[in-house]
Amino acid sequence: MSQFWSPGVHRLTPYTPGEQPRQKLIKLNTNENPWPPAPGVERVLRHFESEQLRRYPDPEATALREALAREYSVDVSQVFVGNGSDEVLALAFQAFFLHDAPLLMPEISYSFYPVYCRLYGIGPRTIPLNEQWQVDLEGFEGEHAGIVFANPNAPTGHGHERADIRRLLERMRERVVLIDEAYADFGGESAVPLIEEHPNLLVTGTFSKSRSLAGLRIGFAIGSRELIEGLDRVKDSFNSYPLDMLAIEAGVAALADRDHFEHCRRAVMATRDHTRQALEAMGFEVLPSQTNFLLVRATRQPAAEIFAALREEYGILVRHFNTDQLRDFLRISIGSEDEMQALIEALGEIGAG
Amino acid sequence: MSQFWSPGVHRLTPYTPGEQPRQKLIKLNTNENPWPPAPGVERVLRHFESEQLRRYPDPEATALREALAREYSVDVSQVFVGNGSDEVLALAFQAFFLHDAPLLMPEISYSFYPVYCRLYGIGPRTIPLNEQWQVDLEGFEGEHAGIVFANPNAPTGHGHERADIRRLLERMRERVVLIDEAYADFGGESAVPLIEEHPNLLVTGTFSKSRSLAGLRIGFAIGSRELIEGLDRVKDSFNSYPLDMLAIEAGVAALADRDHFEHCRRAVMATRDHTRQALEAMGFEVLPSQTNFLLVRATRQPAAEIFAALREEYGILVRHFNTDQLRDFLRISIGSEDEMQALIEALGEIGAG
Repeated sequence: MSQFWSPGVHRLTPYTPGEQPRQKLIKLNTNENPWPPAPGVERVLRHFESEQLRRYPDPEATALREALAREYSVDVSQVFVGNGSDEVLALAFQAFFLHDAPLLMPEISYSFYPVYCRLYGIGPRTIPLNEQWQVDLEGFEGEHAGIVFANPNAPTGHGHERADIRRLLERMRERVVLIDEAYADFGGESAVPLIEEHPNLLVTGTFSKSRSLAGLRIGFAIGSRELIEGLDRVKDSFNSYPLDMLAIEAGVAALADRDHFEHCRRAVMATRDHTRQALEAMGFEVLPSQTNFLLVRATRQPAAEIFAALREEYGILVRHFNTDQLRDFLRISIGSEDEMQALIEALGEIGAG
Repeated sequence: MSQFWSPGVHRLTPYTPGEQPRQKLIKLNTNENPWPPAPGVERVLRHFESEQLRRYPDPEATALREALAREYSVDVSQVFVGNGSDEVLALAFQAFFLHDAPLLMPEISYSFYPVYCRLYGIGPRTIPLNEQWQVDLEGFEGEHAGIVFANPNAPTGHGHERADIRRLLERMRERVVLIDEAYADFGGESAVPLIEEHPNLLVTGTFSKSRSLAGLRIGFAIGSRELIEGLDRVKDSFNSYPLDMLAIEAGVAALADRDHFEHCRRAVMATRDHTRQALEAMGFEVLPSQTNFLLVRATRQPAAEIFAALREEYGILVRHFNTDQLRDFLRISIGSEDEMQALIEALGEIGAG
């Protein structure tokens, strides 16, 4: 603790991102996409006139917001963009959740949510998952400052259908319901079509997973004009230009290539389903997944030991969360077919299952 | 006001960045650099393998922080980087200035500072400039949550010498003194060498002005490990990866080319000095400037009229701040010699002075 810090700073417990190793590993720990971004992204880099970089970017990132509006069949005024969906989520917590009541969230979900709560002094109330390890939408009740969850959820992988989300929204009209759709393109059903009926619904998304652009930091939110205006007010009090020129242009190029997007997301889903079958055949319990990762319970060895053996003996990096509820699990991102085959072989040699 | 917003959101008064016009104008309104970035930046774009973008960037942006550490002769642990210096400033306000006392700042300085204060609920106390329109360092006194000012100051252009800053720091040891050196490369004297003696000194900088990279959003802070740790804690509770891969690599490339940097900043300073002489010869009062802009007082016509005539009749965009104290002034960014010549001719035809 430092006398120079603001009083809350020593109580912050920062989010711990998955390791970005310097050595060459098979990297299945941060839900990155094994496929490259759309070829149009490379063309942006090859042809962008660097002289333009002396200018500030468009503070409203209009070209990217227009492209997202077309993609999701909404108006450009219903689209917000930020420097990765983590920034979009942070700004949304500040814009919408500072009310005198707890913020409702699943007990197991994206572990950045409680970090934002500490940053902004928001009190969370966590709702246990149901018996199928799904977000318990019925459990969201009582006075609250808002609701946040990932759909499909992370790191559990299950996604609720739009009809389930609609029922939740019909009950919950007073505060913002924030649905983080980081993984929705891998088999989830987006709630975006519900924004017209539900001005308190905010849906966030990212280019880091299904668009293979984690390295460029592009996130977005879609919701009513009222919610987007709230986000804009906070963003414009924080950083006028969160997206740089290259991120804006590359994001537009990624959205323009629907064939590439469809091909890559379908390939990831197919690899996920093969991997799940192979892991189940080895004795692992594998939760159903509509995402680009699998949450896998080891039944014969401690998950922490498997994690260590994979890393040290096979150069394969997966994610292990050392919490009471997740200690027995590994979260395995879906890499290429070859990477997943290497994983399966390594697990077989370790004798895991 | 919306029932869905957090209570403070309707009171926010966002910062208004200078206009980024869509039509072709001579753009002297946002202190951009007329020179292109270092040629190495273009090489980064031409050779960067877009396939890498599917990965997350280094959350610590180590390569860029190491390059900045070499540039400023400090340790890498004394360097923080962010998505433009606006983000760095915002995170610093949150990390250091939430104490029960007013934050001291000059009455006229970068207009984003009071915006951050509203965002974080910080109470500012503003200190008038002295009679020479300089930041009154002696005026910073009394109980305070911290001190922030730009040096050289914006939009006034004057920079204090390091010896003046040292005297301030010798008096002010309890809270963070944040010196925003966005413009220091155009003739100011950096306070960075004082960080060893003064663990409460934080110096911020940007690649948007002297490095011609406004379009890529790269800012930084240099200070004691204690202050950098405070910034890291807030940043890692907000967004793990504020800098994208291309910004990191391009920033490194910009720092590597010292000749280009020296050539461009000296050229800007020479153009500034010619422009100042020409404007004074026309009858304008021009404040001395150690920056890449001039603050100019019109003596014969309202500044707002000159602003409008320049824009409408000549396609020249400068900045006019419609506040009590700055209403009679124009802030004119230093463009190319040709652009400044066009400005001088236009002002002559308007009959301004």
